Amino acid sequence: MVEKSLQPIQWNDEGLIPVITQEAASGLVLMHAWMNSDALQQTLKEGVAHYWSRSRKKLWKKGESSGHTQQVKEIRLDCDGDTLLLKVEQKGGIACHTGRHHCFYRQWDGQEWQLVEPILKSSDEIYKNHE
Amino acid sequence: MVEKSLQPIQWNDEGLIPVITQEAASGLVLMHAWMNSDALQQTLKEGVAHYWSRSRKKLWKKGESSGHTQQVKEIRLDCDGDTLLLKVEQKGGIACHTGRHHCFYRQWDGQEWQLVEPILKSSDEIYKNHE
Repeated sequence: MVEKSLQPIQWNDEGLIPVITQEAASGLVLMHAWMNSDALQQTLKEGVAHYWSRSRKKLWKKGESSGHTQQVKEIRLDCDGDTLLLKVEQKGGIACHTGRHHCFYRQWDGQEWQLVEPILKSSDEIYKNHE
Repeated sequence: MVEKSLQPIQWNDEGLIPVITQEAASGLVLMHAWMNSDALQQTLKEGVAHYWSRSRKKLWKKGESSGHTQQVKEIRLDCDGDTLLLKVEQKGGIACHTGRHHCFYRQWDGQEWQLVEPILKSSDEIYKNHE
């Protein structure tokens, strides 16, 4: 049933689809990642975000190491069927591996990129129990 | 100066970077598209969003046909340097070529995708002067 209903999704040549993850309550764009079919099925099944790590080439449950999981509130698909939008509740208020609220912490000032978001927790602290 | 400062950007193998476009005032995610270096340079120069159309393989000034241009208010880069976030003012209040406010109008209800956003203007009307 689910598999049939997911047919409008246009996976790319690598079997992936880009995913925009947005904080449901604040509207902040937290991160951009990728899913394969398994990641999406797992996300639908568990209700927490799973992605495909292109660098590690493996299924990745967001927050598995850090505890910063993402409870999925809503899933949207765009007009071309080639991008997903996840609205989530971000556990711990930290989506970025750098310890910031979200990943888009560099802002263009017309000349260069400025770091404009504070580090809420150091990476060492986030991952200290998961080496 | 600009070119040097854009170096943190990680273009993919095709020389592209994914772009999330968000409405500055509402926080709504309007669309997902791609830029090459020319598209970004043109966006920075003119202050209105330009993308790279992967289907048409050409530089694409958003709203060139429809008039629904996007005035850029802010540009962000993510932690990995491989995704841009544009915060824009959407002229005409329509970002999607289907005549909807934004492209993410299909919502997953647990079984299938539901169309949950109204068409504000028909495609025929949007593009009538630009055949």
